[in-house]
Amino acid sequence: VHNRFALVGADFGAWTIDALKPVRGPGLDKAARLTVRRLASDPDPHPVVWRLEGQMSNLRYATRREVSDLRARQEGLGRPSARRAAMIPIKKSAAWWDLAQDERRAIFEDQSRHTAIGMDYLPAIARQLYHCRDLGQPFDFITWFEYAPEHAVAFEDLVARLRDTREWTYIEREVDVRLALA
Amino acid sequence: VHNRFALVGADFGAWTIDALKPVRGPGLDKAARLTVRRLASDPDPHPVVWRLEGQMSNLRYATRREVSDLRARQEGLGRPSARRAAMIPIKKSAAWWDLAQDERRAIFEDQSRHTAIGMDYLPAIARQLYHCRDLGQPFDFITWFEYAPEHAVAFEDLVARLRDTREWTYIEREVDVRLALA
Repeated sequence: VHNRFALVGADFGAWTIDALKPVRGPGLDKAARLTVRRLASDPDPHPVVWRLEGQMSNLRYATRREVSDLRARQEGLGRPSARRAAMIPIKKSAAWWDLAQDERRAIFEDQSRHTAIGMDYLPAIARQLYHCRDLGQPFDFITWFEYAPEHAVAFEDLVARLRDTREWTYIEREVDVRLALA
Repeated sequence: VHNRFALVGADFGAWTIDALKPVRGPGLDKAARLTVRRLASDPDPHPVVWRLEGQMSNLRYATRREVSDLRARQEGLGRPSARRAAMIPIKKSAAWWDLAQDERRAIFEDQSRHTAIGMDYLPAIARQLYHCRDLGQPFDFITWFEYAPEHAVAFEDLVARLRDTREWTYIEREVDVRLALA
């Protein structure tokens, strides 16, 4: 499937899992390493501890101005300097999904400044969102961040600011997985 | 998978296919009957001609006022009087998906009045949208309409009005399948 990815916790994979902790709701089982791969119909080559699937898709809230700003400032995944990463899968509540588009946009950006906060850390902290709600997955989104070790403090700041927003009151499950290229 | 459906063209199924024609781009192969079923992991019990999969999901453009109006006026699928249906799968262009949310909303509703046009035919013509773009399907959406035979003329009017919108200039594939309960 085009642009479908699997993020797999196992005893193999390019990323070492340095920390894995539940933030809200159930966590994920302990695993040593993580791999991100474009999904194929092949089964995983080895036993896995868990596997999350997500789809790269279009942005759901950003305006043209925001999209243009993001594209002008963001850099892609896989930069050689980006030897740290975080995978933070989240699930929002039924109350969130029952909101209309204008209500979700108002909370997401006008009140919570989700895009604007992320923009403050570009290009240092690269981001990728995987959508999974419509795939019947346990999370609605897998958020993925990559950065150089010298931006680790900035990353903690970014995460703290997002968790302090009104949008985050709609999060009913969140797990925080920190990663390093060994 | 929760709320995932398969719409299957085959020689079995509750709905008789009265007409099947390509509107834009490639059509679908001729089949005698259609069935809609909640997707299970079971394979189809018999050979199928084609099978489309889609996911019921949240509304992407409607405001709170529009959602409230829709909920107040629409009726569900499966009414005993609704012995006619139409399945119209559509695929939008890359140019559509490259638009930002505010641009898509402006075309969808402010210019094309997509929700408002549908509202004009409620409750007579019941509608259900299945999302399939993020499932790697050949179409982005499967639109489904159900109505009583006496509303067939109104339905033609609804379809003609939608096809005459600016939104429809972004449709690059569309097939029109008309159905009846035998």
